[in-house]
Amino acid sequence: MIDPHHRNGAAPVLAVVGVGLIGGSFAAALRSAGAVERVLGVGRSRRSLQEAQELGLIDAAVSLEQAAAEADCILLSVPVGTTQSVLETLRPHLRDETLITDAGSTKVNVVQAARAALGERVGQFIPGHPIAGAEKGGPAAASAELYQGRTTILTPLEENSVEGRLAITRLWEACGARVITMEPDVHDVVLASVSHVPHLLSSVYMWQVAAAENSDLRMELAGSGFRDFTRIAAGSPEMWRDIFLANRDAVLSEIAEVRAALDRAEQALQAEDADKLHDFLERAALARRFWASRSGLY
Amino acid sequence: MIDPHHRNGAAPVLAVVGVGLIGGSFAAALRSAGAVERVLGVGRSRRSLQEAQELGLIDAAVSLEQAAAEADCILLSVPVGTTQSVLETLRPHLRDETLITDAGSTKVNVVQAARAALGERVGQFIPGHPIAGAEKGGPAAASAELYQGRTTILTPLEENSVEGRLAITRLWEACGARVITMEPDVHDVVLASVSHVPHLLSSVYMWQVAAAENSDLRMELAGSGFRDFTRIAAGSPEMWRDIFLANRDAVLSEIAEVRAALDRAEQALQAEDADKLHDFLERAALARRFWASRSGLY
Repeated sequence: MIDPHHRNGAAPVLAVVGVGLIGGSFAAALRSAGAVERVLGVGRSRRSLQEAQELGLIDAAVSLEQAAAEADCILLSVPVGTTQSVLETLRPHLRDETLITDAGSTKVNVVQAARAALGERVGQFIPGHPIAGAEKGGPAAASAELYQGRTTILTPLEENSVEGRLAITRLWEACGARVITMEPDVHDVVLASVSHVPHLLSSVYMWQVAAAENSDLRMELAGSGFRDFTRIAAGSPEMWRDIFLANRDAVLSEIAEVRAALDRAEQALQAEDADKLHDFLERAALARRFWASRSGLY
Repeated sequence: MIDPHHRNGAAPVLAVVGVGLIGGSFAAALRSAGAVERVLGVGRSRRSLQEAQELGLIDAAVSLEQAAAEADCILLSVPVGTTQSVLETLRPHLRDETLITDAGSTKVNVVQAARAALGERVGQFIPGHPIAGAEKGGPAAASAELYQGRTTILTPLEENSVEGRLAITRLWEACGARVITMEPDVHDVVLASVSHVPHLLSSVYMWQVAAAENSDLRMELAGSGFRDFTRIAAGSPEMWRDIFLANRDAVLSEIAEVRAALDRAEQALQAEDADKLHDFLERAALARRFWASRSGLY
């Protein structure tokens, strides 16, 4: 794969299932890097496929069956809940050397779905998750630069070949991403912690303010701290519902940890223990400042 | 007060107790508006007083006793926990026509402190809270523009005279602020809700991430959502400890409401009730989007 000579000199063919921001950007970046010569697009929306083709993200719109038969590499950028059915449709048509990867934001359930759908072919599936996104979705938002300097997490299976892992790693690196690997369950807990739980807490807080009797007065007096803290709560309810459901166990267990931390702060406040409250707040403040100094974000 | 002719033609004298961002900006704005002719500064730090004088924020550094004797209006911009002792020191030297206001971020406890310290003179104290701040503190951060377009909340006492309320209102309006009034307990609940609780939740979350076994890995993968959600957690532990302790009851009762909202979201997730989870997230998202459209913040 991604060796231009491996199929009797034929150019490597990429298929993206889902031609929106994530899949479209993967195609654009690989084409821009010269890593693929032909891109096939699969999608449920005729309009998106047409738009992707007009934008030059894909060369042709095809069926899942055609993608399975023709592609050297297939990227799934579909809601994680549909992974199993997509893979089941691909399976009978896959060639032995075809590699599949995905961009799903949870991995334990995707790995389960892949095992169920692919059976003995599961070694051809290398699960992944590019940590990137943008305000807007759809093919028009796709960009060859989206993954530049970002991180892609791979959660390889023991059935994966060394060559397969390496090929997928090189594709993401060709997109400009740094690739790291971890176990699927670690991935899910870490993402629950730094992405899903903040979203849930921000939404819960926003819900509570909106539900208060004098919510108009509250919102009138809300300032820049409120603004920052609640910004993520404005995100798509559909997308986040699906993420929470897909990563339910890890989200619930992280929420339990946050509740335990809240208990601790609340007890210090309840007891008017100024030192304990100060030390709690100081640890949080120092951790946040350290993160800002390291991350380049502020 | 603020009538240049009221003391046999003498110019109105302002005293600010605490010459940092809040007090310094009040002085600068009123001087810039021509509403005061002489500004006295009181502070614990000789260096801050000197800096405030060099910056032209104050004309002279004086004692609390001198401020009480000479000022037409006194603004307290001191930690709320020190309000009572400051007022006790001022009291024996106050003239009958002197007005006192404050900038404390909680009001129930400030009103209690004022009643305890001022006794029959409590009518001279009109409690207030300008909703403004900046990244930096100290006299150097003070600006005549700080209150432009911002809101100042007054929580007048029944002992206040109509003239006294009006005079303090006019001073804040001269600073460019919009003045609204509410009951002290409503003020404390609303501020707990839109300012103190987000800070506590952000800190609790940050503490929990920092305390996790694989916190390095988590922080490495944290992105822009994490950044926004945790920005306020970097704030001063000393200042926020004091705010939480000063507004303890309202913060605890609002936290209880947030916990109830969290229960609701968590139960929907636990039960994998997609519709209920969606509706919860949607209500939060719509409220946040509506707020952004109204507030001019985003």
